[in-house]
Amino acid sequence: MKRIRLIVAYDGTNYCGWQIQPNGVTIESVINDCLTDLCKEKIQISGASRTDSGVHACGNIAVFDTHAKIPGNKYAYALNQRLPEDIRIQYSDEVDLDFHPRYCHTRKTYEYRIYHGTFPNPLHRLYAHFTYFPIDLNKMIEGAKYFEGEHDFKSFCSSNSQVKTTVRTIYSLKVIEESKNEIVIRVTGNGFLYNMVRIIAGTLLDVGYGRKKPEDIPAIISARNRSLAGPTAPANGLTLVSYEYENECNERGHMVEYFT
Amino acid sequence: MKRIRLIVAYDGTNYCGWQIQPNGVTIESVINDCLTDLCKEKIQISGASRTDSGVHACGNIAVFDTHAKIPGNKYAYALNQRLPEDIRIQYSDEVDLDFHPRYCHTRKTYEYRIYHGTFPNPLHRLYAHFTYFPIDLNKMIEGAKYFEGEHDFKSFCSSNSQVKTTVRTIYSLKVIEESKNEIVIRVTGNGFLYNMVRIIAGTLLDVGYGRKKPEDIPAIISARNRSLAGPTAPANGLTLVSYEYENECNERGHMVEYFT
Repeated sequence: MKRIRLIVAYDGTNYCGWQIQPNGVTIESVINDCLTDLCKEKIQISGASRTDSGVHACGNIAVFDTHAKIPGNKYAYALNQRLPEDIRIQYSDEVDLDFHPRYCHTRKTYEYRIYHGTFPNPLHRLYAHFTYFPIDLNKMIEGAKYFEGEHDFKSFCSSNSQVKTTVRTIYSLKVIEESKNEIVIRVTGNGFLYNMVRIIAGTLLDVGYGRKKPEDIPAIISARNRSLAGPTAPANGLTLVSYEYENECNERGHMVEYFT
Repeated sequence: MKRIRLIVAYDGTNYCGWQIQPNGVTIESVINDCLTDLCKEKIQISGASRTDSGVHACGNIAVFDTHAKIPGNKYAYALNQRLPEDIRIQYSDEVDLDFHPRYCHTRKTYEYRIYHGTFPNPLHRLYAHFTYFPIDLNKMIEGAKYFEGEHDFKSFCSSNSQVKTTVRTIYSLKVIEESKNEIVIRVTGNGFLYNMVRIIAGTLLDVGYGRKKPEDIPAIISARNRSLAGPTAPANGLTLVSYEYENECNERGHMVEYFT
């Protein structure tokens, strides 16, 4: 028995998210089918992040166990021959049998992309949220700094979420003007609550629109009340960029609560 | 009667190019249908650039004549209500009845985008040509400078083209490393021959791969022989970025030969 890790990139546009659904095609189900075909045994992958419908990824992580004799680094090549072109394995390797991506010390980076202008640009429609409201970029940059550090982010968690703790650490949150019409919110943290990045994006957009002030953010955080934050920004603007494992650890326990 | 100008952006992925075809949906046919519906009379647009199947645009130009009483600047709003989301009018206005985009002094800018890595990235697959060959970027930058200026670009014109002259001026051709895996060839000129930008991109890629030397370019240009240049790079990497009109002129004649 071997445990194999995959780094998975996908365009989420045409999928009902990562996790297997009774109705609708998901990233997980497509990869399971290709692996089952490749390994000649029933394979069930386990993903680090169960991204929502329409969310994209450059570096989601999945692991699976198999008796197949294929070397770990060859799975990327073999799977990419079988997968549709909107899913591509970026890397594969064999890991210890007790490695699990959700139980590891990780730094996760997400990007939320905004295209603003009078009209949408078709070349950005799939990977950026479009808005025609004028945006004060400097206000967004000012608001962003309040999110950095360890906070209880209960105000930025969809209310149907059941987690043990809503405390998370954001190592970095930057608002970047990528071009005249494009803004990228780039955030790195030790873990994110359900919809947390999209609610932060929606709140920072409210700040950019002038509906909230940058200096309102600390009070929104400390209120621990979802209704005070901005709306959940649409899924298509969000991309899971990368998972980084500290020391490629497999110490269990520390991070598990973040993913329940 | 009014003449209306449109600035048109589109994702060319799902279209058989700009120009009306007997079989297959084209940008031109979709816009004609929407305008005919809007203006309540048969409308036939005339495009500045008849982009090939799979090529994208941020700023192609189209004009049409109509008796409809709609103000020129309102067409963008009215058409965007009717068009599919992969075509968006960026701007519209009323122009002189003798204005024709193909007869004007213009500067046109194209971008050719390359994504290179071990495996494709699904988020770049629609708008960048993927290659897994290692690329020497500095060689491409060195090769690029030979294209600038007025030259006979017969070596960079698909052989089935029938134009009066193959002399064109390239004002600027830059090879830009946009990220670790992305290269953009950005070229501005007074006009481009059929497939010229894609053949220049294919030739510069050959230089990047080490199949040609940067200093081979002048001899390839002066040979006036298509077979010495590199291959025509795939359509999906190409985007028509913008048309700029010098003094918004409508002097006929000067540029007409470039577009026949």
